[in-house]
Amino acid sequence: MGTGRVQAFSDGVIAIIITIMVLELQVPREANLAALVKIAPVLLSYLLSFVVVAIMWVNHHHLLYQAKRPSARLLWANNILLFWMSLIPFVTRYLGMNSRVPFAVALYGAVLTCNGAAFTWLRQSVNLHRVPDAEMAAYHLGMLRKSAYSTVLYAASVPLAYISVYLAFGVFVLIPVLYFLPERRLTEQAENDANKFSSPSS
Amino acid sequence: MGTGRVQAFSDGVIAIIITIMVLELQVPREANLAALVKIAPVLLSYLLSFVVVAIMWVNHHHLLYQAKRPSARLLWANNILLFWMSLIPFVTRYLGMNSRVPFAVALYGAVLTCNGAAFTWLRQSVNLHRVPDAEMAAYHLGMLRKSAYSTVLYAASVPLAYISVYLAFGVFVLIPVLYFLPERRLTEQAENDANKFSSPSS
Amino acid sequence: MGTGRVQAFSDGVIAIIITIMVLELQVPREANLAALVKIAPVLLSYLLSFVVVAIMWVNHHHLLYQAKRPSARLLWANNILLFWMSLIPFVTRYLGMNSRVPFAVALYGAVLTCNGAAFTWLRQSVNLHRVPDAEMAAYHLGMLRKSAYSTVLYAASVPLAYISVYLAFGVFVLIPVLYFLPERRLTEQAENDANKFSSPSS
Amino acid sequence: MGTGRVQAFSDGVIAIIITIMVLELQVPREANLAALVKIAPVLLSYLLSFVVVAIMWVNHHHLLYQAKRPSARLLWANNILLFWMSLIPFVTRYLGMNSRVPFAVALYGAVLTCNGAAFTWLRQSVNLHRVPDAEMAAYHLGMLRKSAYSTVLYAASVPLAYISVYLAFGVFVLIPVLYFLPERRLTEQAENDANKFSSPSS
Repeated sequence: MGTGRVQAFSDGVIAIIITIMVLELQVPREANLAALVKIAPVLLSYLLSFVVVAIMWVNHHHLLYQAKRPSARLLWANNILLFWMSLIPFVTRYLGMNSRVPFAVALYGAVLTCNGAAFTWLRQSVNLHRVPDAEMAAYHLGMLRKSAYSTVLYAASVPLAYISVYLAFGVFVLIPVLYFLPERRLTEQAENDANKFSSPSS
Repeated sequence: MGTGRVQAFSDGVIAIIITIMVLELQVPREANLAALVKIAPVLLSYLLSFVVVAIMWVNHHHLLYQAKRPSARLLWANNILLFWMSLIPFVTRYLGMNSRVPFAVALYGAVLTCNGAAFTWLRQSVNLHRVPDAEMAAYHLGMLRKSAYSTVLYAASVPLAYISVYLAFGVFVLIPVLYFLPERRLTEQAENDANKFSSPSS
Repeated sequence: MGTGRVQAFSDGVIAIIITIMVLELQVPREANLAALVKIAPVLLSYLLSFVVVAIMWVNHHHLLYQAKRPSARLLWANNILLFWMSLIPFVTRYLGMNSRVPFAVALYGAVLTCNGAAFTWLRQSVNLHRVPDAEMAAYHLGMLRKSAYSTVLYAASVPLAYISVYLAFGVFVLIPVLYFLPERRLTEQAENDANKFSSPSS
Repeated sequence: MGTGRVQAFSDGVIAIIITIMVLELQVPREANLAALVKIAPVLLSYLLSFVVVAIMWVNHHHLLYQAKRPSARLLWANNILLFWMSLIPFVTRYLGMNSRVPFAVALYGAVLTCNGAAFTWLRQSVNLHRVPDAEMAAYHLGMLRKSAYSTVLYAASVPLAYISVYLAFGVFVLIPVLYFLPERRLTEQAENDANKFSSPSS
């Protein structure tokens, strides 16, 4: 029994989470630019959450691929992660409607903190199955640390929202940027390795 | 023809059921803690149903894995289960809006009773394909009994709701707890077995 | 390139269609039996459509399994079927709100007629790939005829709704019953065959 | 690690996008033909977007099949495409409600332009993995050009909407027609090739 069905179920839930946020974008009554600009905070909240969920999916993609067996701990760590992810559409809409209210911004940060903690725990669950490859183990540990750091950063956004919502938004934008860059470098390296292996004669 | 597509379809339906409940969480107009506390029953109903559906998915995961062929009986027992599961978002919202009204609590219990009965029937359908392994057969019988017991407990919550809604909520919380613990023990045992097999020399 | 991804996409769309109908079940404000009885037509419309879509999924399951290659014709016949299936939630809700108005009943019948015609065309598309097995070809032809007959019956429900909505409802209930029975017999036979093959010594 | 999970996730998201548009079809209160005719623009917008998304899915189906490895660039080009696709239900509803207002028509054209550009970039990303087959490479280049051309046409619909919304609608109808025909020819050719290979003696 591989992790295929866990992946399929997670893909289903994440696909729905990332898509239903669009359902919550209420169409303005008037058809002009001013009406669209008025809902800009709603659209930007959607864009932010789409990026957050997409990054989580890409990391989940890489992570579950490495897990060989769906242990009970992995299964439940995954379900807990999916629970916290499922609250993202709710807080996204809340944020879009109240983008300058510290409470809404802090709540968004708090739910993302829980997501970060759940992801860290899931990675820890996979980590337990000892990885035989030294390079892979180092990569794993690096990603685990990154998960933990970004959880702490998200947690910091909660009090920061009460000082200035812009500081909290700074954190929300910073973390995806941090995740995006190294993830890219890493996969390119993996690609180079694959090229190396597939064309050893060149 | 394996049960692959039955699993894929079930995963799709269950993923949607577990996720659309979030769509029904209406965002309060005011952005403060008091507004959020006011919708606490709605959020707790969602949490309860998320746990119930997640447990059903985990058990469904284990169960369908064991079924080798998708017989007509299995297919329809599964469709009937999915029908009753599809009513969970409806009664969850009803419960969230009327968490102290016996009728809403009893209706939630009644729909979960039907779910329990449908799951028991589905397990019975799989059971029919005689299991060659004695240990597996004992596990199957144990799970079948547990399905039947929890169906009876859910049925009991219906009249209990009219005595006190808290008694019914006690049943709703008790059953997931009962399911969670042994499921965990069992999978850990399976994991130990797998470790034993994968490292016979140690 | 097999039909795997066509199946996966269809499963996704059908799973969503069958589940989002629940989202359209509006929870009554009052929590008592009278309020629930008042929305009985809505609940029964949902039950009817759930059964219709579940039967279509089961037949789709068997049909696509037999198609070896996803030709352009099959792909588009399938997309057209999915389009008509996607209108079922819309007409279901319309029917639930206006269950005694001939126009709403006739519209439901008309959309199911289009679904029947689209399914017949899809089966015809698969049929074109000549089936080598004589028994399979006979089964195929039988199912094709059944698709055509039920399309005609659904078409008849449109004028019947203007004579009496109960006549139209009679058709809506009759067709699933007709589909359910033979499908069951057939799969049981397939099962017996499989048993025969898997235990030739007994 | 193949592109299987990228396909599964994309299928999930596209299946949801194509289906949730139906949720936005608001059922008219009155059950008669006049009420239905009144929402004809909404229904036609839905039909148009269903066709657009279905064509994108078919092309995505063929495209990802050719990609052997999910590089970081492919993964993110795909996520960006899914983001723009996820806005289609929003602009579809906006268009349905304001089908004669240039701004709504232009916005629909603008989102489809972004979709076209994202699809072109995705195809370019796959193209980078050098295709060994000369015929395949020619096909690839042809499809890439077609993607680019239709992106330019969609971009032209934005100013055209301000001259006459009918001109813009002409573009919206023209592009699916152009896509549909050659796609069909091509797959039929592939089918002929497959027939040739599977029956070399005839």
